[in-house]
Amino acid sequence: MTRIAQIAGDGIGPEVMAVARRVLDAAGVTDLQWTELDWSCERYAREGSMMPADGMDLLAEHEAVLLGAVGWPGVPDHISLWGLLIPIRRAFDQYVNLRPMRTFDGVPTPVRADLAEGVDIVVVRENTEGEYSTLGGRHGSGAAETALQTAIFTRAGIERIAHVAARHAAERGGTLTVATKSNGIIHSMPFWDEVVREVAQEYPIEVHFELIDALAAHLVMRPADYDVVLGSNLFGDILSDLVGGVCGSIGIAPSANIDPTRTHPSMFEPVHGSAPDIAGQGLANPVGMVWSAAMMLKHLGKEKETNRIMAAITTTLADPATRTPDVGGLADTETVADALVDHLRS
Amino acid sequence: MTRIAQIAGDGIGPEVMAVARRVLDAAGVTDLQWTELDWSCERYAREGSMMPADGMDLLAEHEAVLLGAVGWPGVPDHISLWGLLIPIRRAFDQYVNLRPMRTFDGVPTPVRADLAEGVDIVVVRENTEGEYSTLGGRHGSGAAETALQTAIFTRAGIERIAHVAARHAAERGGTLTVATKSNGIIHSMPFWDEVVREVAQEYPIEVHFELIDALAAHLVMRPADYDVVLGSNLFGDILSDLVGGVCGSIGIAPSANIDPTRTHPSMFEPVHGSAPDIAGQGLANPVGMVWSAAMMLKHLGKEKETNRIMAAITTTLADPATRTPDVGGLADTETVADALVDHLRS
Ligand SMILES: CC(C)[C@H](C(=O)O)[C@@H](O)C(=O)O
Ligand SMILES: CC(C)[C@H](C(=O)O)[C@@H](O)C(=O)O
Repeated sequence: MTRIAQIAGDGIGPEVMAVARRVLDAAGVTDLQWTELDWSCERYAREGSMMPADGMDLLAEHEAVLLGAVGWPGVPDHISLWGLLIPIRRAFDQYVNLRPMRTFDGVPTPVRADLAEGVDIVVVRENTEGEYSTLGGRHGSGAAETALQTAIFTRAGIERIAHVAARHAAERGGTLTVATKSNGIIHSMPFWDEVVREVAQEYPIEVHFELIDALAAHLVMRPADYDVVLGSNLFGDILSDLVGGVCGSIGIAPSANIDPTRTHPSMFEPVHGSAPDIAGQGLANPVGMVWSAAMMLKHLGKEKETNRIMAAITTTLADPATRTPDVGGLADTETVADALVDHLRS
Repeated sequence: MTRIAQIAGDGIGPEVMAVARRVLDAAGVTDLQWTELDWSCERYAREGSMMPADGMDLLAEHEAVLLGAVGWPGVPDHISLWGLLIPIRRAFDQYVNLRPMRTFDGVPTPVRADLAEGVDIVVVRENTEGEYSTLGGRHGSGAAETALQTAIFTRAGIERIAHVAARHAAERGGTLTVATKSNGIIHSMPFWDEVVREVAQEYPIEVHFELIDALAAHLVMRPADYDVVLGSNLFGDILSDLVGGVCGSIGIAPSANIDPTRTHPSMFEPVHGSAPDIAGQGLANPVGMVWSAAMMLKHLGKEKETNRIMAAITTTLADPATRTPDVGGLADTETVADALVDHLRS
């Protein structure tokens, strides 16, 4: 048995998690042993912390963490995120954040159909350093009150993510686009470029460096030209949501937070949040969650089941009767779940 | 006479500047006295600096600077930018970077026509502090080699840009969207939000804070929902290019770097760069430059001429025979210029 920690979390988290569990069952994945954890903002309200004091130790006994979504109005983000999501990504050194996204037959996209066709992008995001550092704070008062935030890039940190991105590019189309802002403005970016360039030379790939501003525009204007996109923690965060938008909905987008050394558990979570506005109404799009679960299976070596789930997602999304309104459909969460399960059982 | 410093710059800079000058003439603007400066990468190659030692003093004697584009392969960006563009923005305390963008009849957009219709957005970008600070550097060697970059936000710096954005919002649709990343990740952003919120309360506007990642997606998915968007130096940079992409081409996008106190000259420049790949071929889209010149006229109080130029741009872009290929047309630079001039003379 492979041990999986399940954190359904808040809002639509539990709703989409339930679908993921049904889908994993229907795909015939029977050798997972689940630890169901109630870590959430609700737990915080009740017990004063998002997770127990020994929470990280408990997670460490698992192969993977499957997470729904955390966050709830009234609980400040710095509590829900620094109390759960961010410590997991960091303490478990999940330095790779993989965010694949593609267009699907039938799913309407905001970009024109001729541009959307065949879009299939993986954003590889550095997940442990860069702009998301703990170094920062406020100082002084009055007009001179100042807030500082220091981004930190290390050679080791850049090298390891560059290897992952370059390897992905080599396995896919052979092209790597690197988001940068190295035009003499942000001092850390020439270093980022230099290290990425050195690493990429070891792989049979083409590498393009693109300024983050221009890249944001080009991803809208010609998304099909991109394949693997490497970004720092902040740039990867922005670009992956942007690509989700280009492809039609963030509700579909999955993500994997991976420690490739397998020293620690990796964590799989949809890109969307807990969506308090639609929570409890059975309206959530479960596809981002299900796709994240499929990425977990792939990480566990279950290629066959992964592919079957991806095929079920594709078929389900193709029919307006079995996709949710955010992707131009008519279905509620349950209907999507039933369709996914039916496809997997048939 | 109003004194204007003209820096045509590199690549397509001089080509589009020539069009702007013809258009200003045709619009009947005759009371500008031009100082034509050859500051550029070419000058750098010849004389070792982008501008003379007393360059800033010389500019200071003008009401405004009209800039084409700077940058050329072989001259590192930190030279062409820190040697010209960035010092002008900073020494002249041009803390407001206005970047309006809209869709135009006839100009194809990458987003679907139903979503593109009526899009009309002004990105208000903080232009002097934030992520574009001079504080940063590299340290150490080997795997531990590290680059740091510190973003700096001051209360005074946030307040003044927030006033400008709120005033714009009050004069336009009454809605201000503020790009943030305040979910406990980037420490300076809660401070940004807090100060912007305080300032915005003084205006009869609705204010929405949106996380930069979600905002990037939403600007693609429903661009018509946005009106005035306020961003920090980096976020404003990214979002303005993104909006340019959504509207069809960065070749159209203008920008104004303004010191609202009028202590120093303001600078007007298209968002596009020097485009070495098409330089010298007469293919450049001059609209971003012409629109920037129109923004200069508005700054100088010439509303009537501004409006006439904007009308000429709209008519010219509507006809594929008089717009360039980047916006779905057939024209070269000269043909666009002739059309603009004809519309203004007729
Ligand atoms: C919730 C937030 C901390 C997070 C991030 O910025 O990493 C989210 O936007 C994401 O992309 O996973
Ligand atoms: C050229 C570069 C320094 C500049 C910036 O980032 O400000 C450009 O991208 C812009 O938007 O004007």
